[in-house]
Amino acid sequence: MSATPIKLYELAGAEDNRRFSPFCWRVRFALLHKGLLFETVPWRFTEKEAIAFSGQGKVPVIVDGDRVICDSWAIAQYLEDTYADRPSLFGGPIGRALSRFVTDWVETVLHPEILRLVLTDVYAHLHDLDKDYFRRTREERFGMTLEALCINRDERVVSFRNCLAPLRATLQHQPFLAGQEPAWADYVTFSAFQWVRCVSPFPLLVTEDPVFSWRERMLDAFDGEARNAMGYFC
Amino acid sequence: MSATPIKLYELAGAEDNRRFSPFCWRVRFALLHKGLLFETVPWRFTEKEAIAFSGQGKVPVIVDGDRVICDSWAIAQYLEDTYADRPSLFGGPIGRALSRFVTDWVETVLHPEILRLVLTDVYAHLHDLDKDYFRRTREERFGMTLEALCINRDERVVSFRNCLAPLRATLQHQPFLAGQEPAWADYVTFSAFQWVRCVSPFPLLVTEDPVFSWRERMLDAFDGEARNAMGYFC
Repeated sequence: MSATPIKLYELAGAEDNRRFSPFCWRVRFALLHKGLLFETVPWRFTEKEAIAFSGQGKVPVIVDGDRVICDSWAIAQYLEDTYADRPSLFGGPIGRALSRFVTDWVETVLHPEILRLVLTDVYAHLHDLDKDYFRRTREERFGMTLEALCINRDERVVSFRNCLAPLRATLQHQPFLAGQEPAWADYVTFSAFQWVRCVSPFPLLVTEDPVFSWRERMLDAFDGEARNAMGYFC
Repeated sequence: MSATPIKLYELAGAEDNRRFSPFCWRVRFALLHKGLLFETVPWRFTEKEAIAFSGQGKVPVIVDGDRVICDSWAIAQYLEDTYADRPSLFGGPIGRALSRFVTDWVETVLHPEILRLVLTDVYAHLHDLDKDYFRRTREERFGMTLEALCINRDERVVSFRNCLAPLRATLQHQPFLAGQEPAWADYVTFSAFQWVRCVSPFPLLVTEDPVFSWRERMLDAFDGEARNAMGYFC
């Protein structure tokens, strides 16, 4: 382990402490899981030069001594392999391969649904420096205004809750996706919910849902790291 | 390992060798993965008395010496724990927990979509003894005729292919869900496709799909066990 803390560049909103990126949250949890010393650096979408050293323009980026790693999945691999004597994020080759599947499930199923529930709330919490950039790039990507994208969310949330069916079924067998204790699969999934919590009071889940109880357990993890973060109580 | 082969009761259609149940296929693959000697017994939906010894009325059921186990997930746990010195189905506690998630994804997402594509084909291949029972129980469960359930499948298959997005994404990283070699997660997912193959010429996948190539690899596994089974080439 490096003598100096690992540096994690994290997306921030108007306030330095509003850290809403799901990709950064999963890395923060991975660092906590490994018990590594780290410090975070707030970063905005338009501060491309601040992370130019990484050879690309997105966070998360970590700097560990003289190593620079980007992309949340690549960072997880790096932490698992470099700090192999610390608690495992994946639990071996099959667990790592299946953690990739959970990550892909989150990114292809949950994230597209969540985008359409909270992108206007994300926009509302951005730093002024980022607002034009964010609106322009997202409206180009989706071919509609942010407001059109997020219309009818009271109806749309039903479809989101239906997408959670496999997670809900698994949580009726075990307290965490990864079993008796959380690991990468839980962090990557929970971070999608934390993304919402950091920017929106919109209630994603009903309290009777087993997913709600699991989210509570994840909010409590690591001394309430996620619960204590700047956000809403929803 | 028992001196006598494990006995696996498998659902069969009109012909003894038409074994189309996805729940039975995953167990057959688990037995092959463990390299265990086994023999299969064809069984029909209405032959409740033939498996009454198991205390319930569904297959798969396995008999291993004096042990009787039902339910495909419970059978997988039993095989993993009893034959722990043989190749692992799960790769440890985290892999086992995530294999449960993959199983739940298959059962809550893929199976409901597949039902509506092929239930009339399943019906067409049933033994005469089972036809009335199957139509009555399924039409009660779904609240419509089998034919109404499976209408417009040329359009519906598009929605099925969209559901495969997380599987497709993962297979762009690695040859199998479980990594470099197949394990339970692959068996449970592939068995959903094999269910269709055994009863229907309907083309579920386009050849350019990475899921198609993975299915080919699974059809080749264990000397072509699934490819050589009675079914269609689709």
